[in-house]
Amino acid sequence: MIDVAAAAGVSKMTASRALRGSKDVSTESKDRVIAAAKKIGYFGNHLAASLSSARSDLVGVIVPSLTNIVFPQVMSGISDGLLGTGFQPAFGVTDYNLYREYELVGRMLSWRPAGMIITGMEQSDQTRKLLIEADIPIVQIMDTDGDAIDYVVGFSHQSAGAEMAEALFGAGRTRFGYIGCNLENDLRAKKRKQGFFDVLKRYDIAITTQLGGILSSVSEGRRLTQELLEQTPDLDCIYFSNDDVAFGGLCYCIEAGIAVPNSVALAGFNGLGLLEGFPGLIATSTTQRHDIGRASAGIITQSLQSPEQLKSRKLVMQPTINLGALQT
Amino acid sequence: MIDVAAAAGVSKMTASRALRGSKDVSTESKDRVIAAAKKIGYFGNHLAASLSSARSDLVGVIVPSLTNIVFPQVMSGISDGLLGTGFQPAFGVTDYNLYREYELVGRMLSWRPAGMIITGMEQSDQTRKLLIEADIPIVQIMDTDGDAIDYVVGFSHQSAGAEMAEALFGAGRTRFGYIGCNLENDLRAKKRKQGFFDVLKRYDIAITTQLGGILSSVSEGRRLTQELLEQTPDLDCIYFSNDDVAFGGLCYCIEAGIAVPNSVALAGFNGLGLLEGFPGLIATSTTQRHDIGRASAGIITQSLQSPEQLKSRKLVMQPTINLGALQT
Repeated sequence: MIDVAAAAGVSKMTASRALRGSKDVSTESKDRVIAAAKKIGYFGNHLAASLSSARSDLVGVIVPSLTNIVFPQVMSGISDGLLGTGFQPAFGVTDYNLYREYELVGRMLSWRPAGMIITGMEQSDQTRKLLIEADIPIVQIMDTDGDAIDYVVGFSHQSAGAEMAEALFGAGRTRFGYIGCNLENDLRAKKRKQGFFDVLKRYDIAITTQLGGILSSVSEGRRLTQELLEQTPDLDCIYFSNDDVAFGGLCYCIEAGIAVPNSVALAGFNGLGLLEGFPGLIATSTTQRHDIGRASAGIITQSLQSPEQLKSRKLVMQPTINLGALQT
Repeated sequence: MIDVAAAAGVSKMTASRALRGSKDVSTESKDRVIAAAKKIGYFGNHLAASLSSARSDLVGVIVPSLTNIVFPQVMSGISDGLLGTGFQPAFGVTDYNLYREYELVGRMLSWRPAGMIITGMEQSDQTRKLLIEADIPIVQIMDTDGDAIDYVVGFSHQSAGAEMAEALFGAGRTRFGYIGCNLENDLRAKKRKQGFFDVLKRYDIAITTQLGGILSSVSEGRRLTQELLEQTPDLDCIYFSNDDVAFGGLCYCIEAGIAVPNSVALAGFNGLGLLEGFPGLIATSTTQRHDIGRASAGIITQSLQSPEQLKSRKLVMQPTINLGALQT
């Protein structure tokens, strides 16, 4: 570090601050320090430094899955949000398994992370205990239906499902089918389904048929839509657990010559780029994945630097409903 | 640790081995130790342990992007490959920026990782220098066209492009268009294009038209396919930089009533699940993303435990070509 400071012509303190990405250092000094560090090949020993301060520059991030593009997009937001802050994300994947989540949390805490970002509100009691005792900022993301450990950034899936039911009912649909994949494990998809069904019940509409799949994928959505429409051809609307599954349904309808949305409306969830293949044909709730990731990263850094500036422990970014061609 | 061993009724050594996921410990003992550790809330201090051994249990993983599902699938393979080994992946994203890659490598090395997995063969000289000097196993993945630093797991993109050109020519196509997105940064897509063009040149076929996009997405593929076919309606084949872009092209053709593959064949790259929306309509090269991730994780652990068992420094998993409905 002394070598870097000397090569850059700044004090050791300034060099140290510049390399940590502190805002107190001018851009010019920062550039000089980075150039000097680069030249010398210096990257310090963050591990030793973090041990002495009993905290590393890692932010632990736990997601349930990488096979749906949603979580990589959240991770991308976190990665962007931490860029230049001196913190680095370390990701772990639970496969929607609560015991694996517990093990991951335990392992990550042994690195003494600066903070943790964890998906959902349904941690086991033991996991919650670990997180509470860690005494670092914890951000639960993607959901707000449940008890917060510390900070929360997300939205209510129950409300999102309810709002979609209202919107489809408002657009004149009355004969509903439902297709959900991986509902055993994907508790947030289950909450959306619950919200959706609650509204229909209030309007005294019975869901005619529903089917469940194990894998959540385009091909599974395609297969289940065919099965559902063969069972119940007079449906005028299908709600799917997410956009991947709904898009598979659309592909089937197009091939089978079933007019979407005139004959049957399809509704998904997430607002994936995939839907732009056939713009407007699938109604969806567009979630702010990247922004939720970015905001959660911001809360970690803010709560470490100036927690008094954080206005609230809960940041709600409710998805917006887009009915596309169904809107008249 | 002593508490855990006592609670589990095993020696401290056994408890330590069990928690590291060692194979020398019986499943029964392992279960007992894990149950005891869980009960006590013990996860050790890996950071301190790793400092004393000058090595942490982190495996640094660097990918260029999270917005195409390919890299999350590789990461999922790495995560699965490290499960139960005592190592944990920490991911970083470069956004295809070589300087960001250099900074990420530097930062990750400061944690003293047990090994590093990095995408591609095109690191800058400075990044290569850091990796070589780190003296830990380095696995470059997803590509084999270039100079290896240490271990390599992937395939030749140049050959993959060439093989697709041979296959399409073999299926009787002669009037080719090309659509590539993000070629400035995605050097592997550029290599596929090069391989593809080289073969056509050998057969004395000129590519009639080509178009480039910045973002690689379904909607960009859709837009560019419309533009390309309006410019050159008599094409009988389009090669795309990947499946997302090709799928957007298919969506346009279906809506415009252009018969695929009879009138125009579409060829992508990756073998994404997306293609199952319209099975067989897009020719593709199916890559083993998950297996490449898993194998690279295996090489890291193997080279730390028993390097003599590693047969080769280069593992080639060439994609298989699937022509779908184009196959006669």
